[in-house]
Amino acid sequence: MTPVIPRIEGVLAPVVTPFGADHAPDAPRFIRHCRWLVANGVGLAAFGTNSEANSLAVPERMELLEKVVAAGVDPARMMPGAGMCAVTDSARLAAHATQLGCAGVLMLPPFYYKGVSDEGLYRNYAEIVERVGDDRLRIYLYHIPQVTQVPISLALIERLRKDFADVVVGIKDSSGDWANAKAMLDRFAPGGFDVFVGSESLLLANLRGGGKGCISATANVNAPAIAGLHRDWQRADADMQQAALDRVRAIFQGYPMIPALKGAVAHWSRTPDWRIVRPPLVELDAAHSAALVGELEQAGFSMPGLNA
Amino acid sequence: MTPVIPRIEGVLAPVVTPFGADHAPDAPRFIRHCRWLVANGVGLAAFGTNSEANSLAVPERMELLEKVVAAGVDPARMMPGAGMCAVTDSARLAAHATQLGCAGVLMLPPFYYKGVSDEGLYRNYAEIVERVGDDRLRIYLYHIPQVTQVPISLALIERLRKDFADVVVGIKDSSGDWANAKAMLDRFAPGGFDVFVGSESLLLANLRGGGKGCISATANVNAPAIAGLHRDWQRADADMQQAALDRVRAIFQGYPMIPALKGAVAHWSRTPDWRIVRPPLVELDAAHSAALVGELEQAGFSMPGLNA
Repeated sequence: MTPVIPRIEGVLAPVVTPFGADHAPDAPRFIRHCRWLVANGVGLAAFGTNSEANSLAVPERMELLEKVVAAGVDPARMMPGAGMCAVTDSARLAAHATQLGCAGVLMLPPFYYKGVSDEGLYRNYAEIVERVGDDRLRIYLYHIPQVTQVPISLALIERLRKDFADVVVGIKDSSGDWANAKAMLDRFAPGGFDVFVGSESLLLANLRGGGKGCISATANVNAPAIAGLHRDWQRADADMQQAALDRVRAIFQGYPMIPALKGAVAHWSRTPDWRIVRPPLVELDAAHSAALVGELEQAGFSMPGLNA
Repeated sequence: MTPVIPRIEGVLAPVVTPFGADHAPDAPRFIRHCRWLVANGVGLAAFGTNSEANSLAVPERMELLEKVVAAGVDPARMMPGAGMCAVTDSARLAAHATQLGCAGVLMLPPFYYKGVSDEGLYRNYAEIVERVGDDRLRIYLYHIPQVTQVPISLALIERLRKDFADVVVGIKDSSGDWANAKAMLDRFAPGGFDVFVGSESLLLANLRGGGKGCISATANVNAPAIAGLHRDWQRADADMQQAALDRVRAIFQGYPMIPALKGAVAHWSRTPDWRIVRPPLVELDAAHSAALVGELEQAGFSMPGLNA
């Protein structure tokens, strides 16, 4: 019998992906950042939106994942993104991550065609389950309608839970709409469906409502503090901790998020190449980088141990 | 010296992609449909939006293209789609098509990230040109903002034309906005930039305005008539021909386009498997299929020679 990996929960980061000047992924730097996150209590939702996953080819994603697992980072702390436009690609990535022992995969809906039906989305997920054909597969749906334009409706979740209760076990709700997350919690959490919000700004509300954590861009940088709120959420100072997280997040939200995350990591790791993004994104220019770091330092922010 | 392939023009179809019951691409059926199109004067914009290209993995696209070229279909009549979210994928597909002798490639912008800058899009196309590194490469930009949410602006075209005049040689404008196509014609056609509209409903206007043709979903089915207008557009009956094309297109537009195209091909080729689509699309049900065919037959439409 294959050992069952415990359900992943808590705080996860869509791990930023380091590139060299030639835009090739830099595996050693990726592994270092993954280790820093795990050491700070943050799980690895590698290949998320903020990882520029959609700017990577399928073999590039597979190679990076193999290398980080081979380096000894625990796949039970990983929920890599696997949702592509082509069902064959999604199934290939999901099977690969499952075989490597990942706790689950985060699954975008196919996002090229717009105005698609719940029936079509259901068939997409059902076909992935069938093609992977592995009892260990755990799918977390990924609702980010402002980017995909393809929402995951409550009716779709209900149908998937009915037919694939042991496989479709959770969702990341990146809509930013607390009413939507609350509706999912009320309707599906009692049945064992794990709701992650897409930002730590809703982390405390989600945990109080029965959710399991957050998968957030800024967990790449503010890792110890966000993981701290997940640990301490039942303590008296939880609201104060939430407010402190919100102040740091607000600073990052004043800049394009992915270039800003990379700018911060570049600064505190003293590795200028961390600033590099793939097109169609554009890195922060020197003035904006300096302004971001200045704001963060003024707020008392730093990334201890990143330069180890 | 490598022979230069003449610029492709006229009517092209985003060739519908046949699948089996297991959703695997059916190469022999694909080749048959390509041959029928070419025999009817229609070029092959394989792997377009209406080809469900975005539901195919990169290796699936490469294998189909290799097979159709190996079968003797002329690559000088081909402008396969090559634009993916990842610049490495786009470059790989563009290099592959160019090496096979295709007249050009139709290049979507990277379409996952929204609100990206012209600078980021410029870098994407420039990196593709650099990675392909082949003088034979001909890129046709693909403007379809209602699907991608990532428009190709006139300013971006201007910059690409300035730096890559021999490579970025045209555009498919699928916006349906004649004012936009007209602006591109006025500004760039005199310099040798080839404008294709995304529907035959604008074909006559485009040809009269100095454009080169159309790349249209319904060229998959109404091939001889649409190619006929391209041939006859300076004749006295051109407006009448245009009106006849519009009547057939209006019928298809009453249904979801891709399932409707496949339904018509299934009917006239007597091959029910042609109805199969990959998720997230859903095939026409029997009642809608019958209604579509009924409307088309009443309008005198058929697909002669498809069942050969």
